[in-house]
Amino acid sequence: MLVIKLGGSKGIATEQFLSSLAVLKKPYVLVHGANVELDTLMRSLDIEPQLVTSSTGQVSRYTDRQAMDLFLMAYCGKVNKRLVETLRRKGVNAVGLSAMDGGIALGRRKPRIRIVQNGKQKVLDGDYAGSIERIDRTLLDLLLSSGYVPVLCPPAVSHEGEAINVDGDKLATEIAVALGAEALLVFSNTPGLLRDVDDPSSTVPQIDVNRLDESLNLAQGRMKKKVLAAADAVRRGVGEVILADANRDNAIESALGGAGTHVVGAPVHSMEHSHAG
Amino acid sequence: MLVIKLGGSKGIATEQFLSSLAVLKKPYVLVHGANVELDTLMRSLDIEPQLVTSSTGQVSRYTDRQAMDLFLMAYCGKVNKRLVETLRRKGVNAVGLSAMDGGIALGRRKPRIRIVQNGKQKVLDGDYAGSIERIDRTLLDLLLSSGYVPVLCPPAVSHEGEAINVDGDKLATEIAVALGAEALLVFSNTPGLLRDVDDPSSTVPQIDVNRLDESLNLAQGRMKKKVLAAADAVRRGVGEVILADANRDNAIESALGGAGTHVVGAPVHSMEHSHAG
Repeated sequence: MLVIKLGGSKGIATEQFLSSLAVLKKPYVLVHGANVELDTLMRSLDIEPQLVTSSTGQVSRYTDRQAMDLFLMAYCGKVNKRLVETLRRKGVNAVGLSAMDGGIALGRRKPRIRIVQNGKQKVLDGDYAGSIERIDRTLLDLLLSSGYVPVLCPPAVSHEGEAINVDGDKLATEIAVALGAEALLVFSNTPGLLRDVDDPSSTVPQIDVNRLDESLNLAQGRMKKKVLAAADAVRRGVGEVILADANRDNAIESALGGAGTHVVGAPVHSMEHSHAG
Repeated sequence: MLVIKLGGSKGIATEQFLSSLAVLKKPYVLVHGANVELDTLMRSLDIEPQLVTSSTGQVSRYTDRQAMDLFLMAYCGKVNKRLVETLRRKGVNAVGLSAMDGGIALGRRKPRIRIVQNGKQKVLDGDYAGSIERIDRTLLDLLLSSGYVPVLCPPAVSHEGEAINVDGDKLATEIAVALGAEALLVFSNTPGLLRDVDDPSSTVPQIDVNRLDESLNLAQGRMKKKVLAAADAVRRGVGEVILADANRDNAIESALGGAGTHVVGAPVHSMEHSHAG
């Protein structure tokens, strides 16, 4: 059982990536984003995407009710269904879902965020965003055991039953942990953790979660977040996390064969392995 | 087993309708449209919805690739997921799907249509629309037998693996026939077939498919199409088809209790009843 995350950034050759996915013989869940599609949709409606910086320095998308409508359109509409269409054409029995469907991901909505604007602290209400607290694997198990490939994206659902924007990488991680995946493959437009950010051939092949400090010194910004999330997943029972390049030929086969950065280590809670499917 | 169709037209009090649905104790599939949402989205992008009249007089939406992207956004994105969100909040274990997911509805794409424009016959290419030819009930059976409520909308998938725009009423009919539903409930913003179109209290309570002519004389335009489709469904094994008002209090209970127009009759192919679930 694998969980595969495909980023929603610019410059990802989706068609070629899905061809490499279509020949994969193992059961898997595909988790995807749609950030660029959402930005494009918003701009074509003359709505400027609103990025906010929290008081702890986190940058996130402010998602009011109107923005959530557009979020649903980009993520669950265009991107999810075009992925399903292409995968099915390549012979994959795909089923597109949001993390709300069947109550897959339950989270806590944080309607009020403290932000920093022009150096000043402010409070912003009406945000439909939050963090995942629990995964219900029932629907995913049902589909996987019948040979379907779930194609999954945010939003999750809040305790109050509202659609909430949650981070796509985080969703993939929580799904992988809940399913006790043998591997979580995180594909973006970079080849993994690089010793030298300007040299794609300097990819760090392996990171041991028990000797994380050295690797974290190399990582910056979003990559640092990815390495920390990967280490967290491995500590919680995922066999390994692979950070790899979506645009490489045979992306899936290459990553499983050693390409990219493999985050490995003895899990702290080895009991969670009992879920491995 | 019921199949319930909720129209995507203006003036349907969705929240109230879904409350009446949430207390329904039988298993069901909800099929929905999103015509008005799609028109709204297109107009807010300064794209005029293109309605074409075929040489046989049928009016349909011309759906090129760009229009299909917007179709996916309105149908599978905003409307499908907002329905799932509201139903789940009301305690229904809803799962939102397009008729492409799991290969539910397979159809024949008609990329070239003959149209009449300003009185002249023309040929228009690049249409992603078609007619349903086969229903694969596997995924619906799997979900229903596990207590999920499938919430379903177009598009279907073509033989070539493309998303195609299919009529929502037709999708609901084919699903009801394939599942051998005991009833198909078709909700719109009219109370059923009226003896006098200006008098909502003149609803025809029952139509026998074996004495259809009298009723067809009363029906006009879209209602004539609905009555013919209903008769077709009953002849193909659906227990009864109920044409009813989505905006009535306790819409579901009322319709099952006798409100609206009930299309009934002994099915010609009674063997199809063996599928009744």
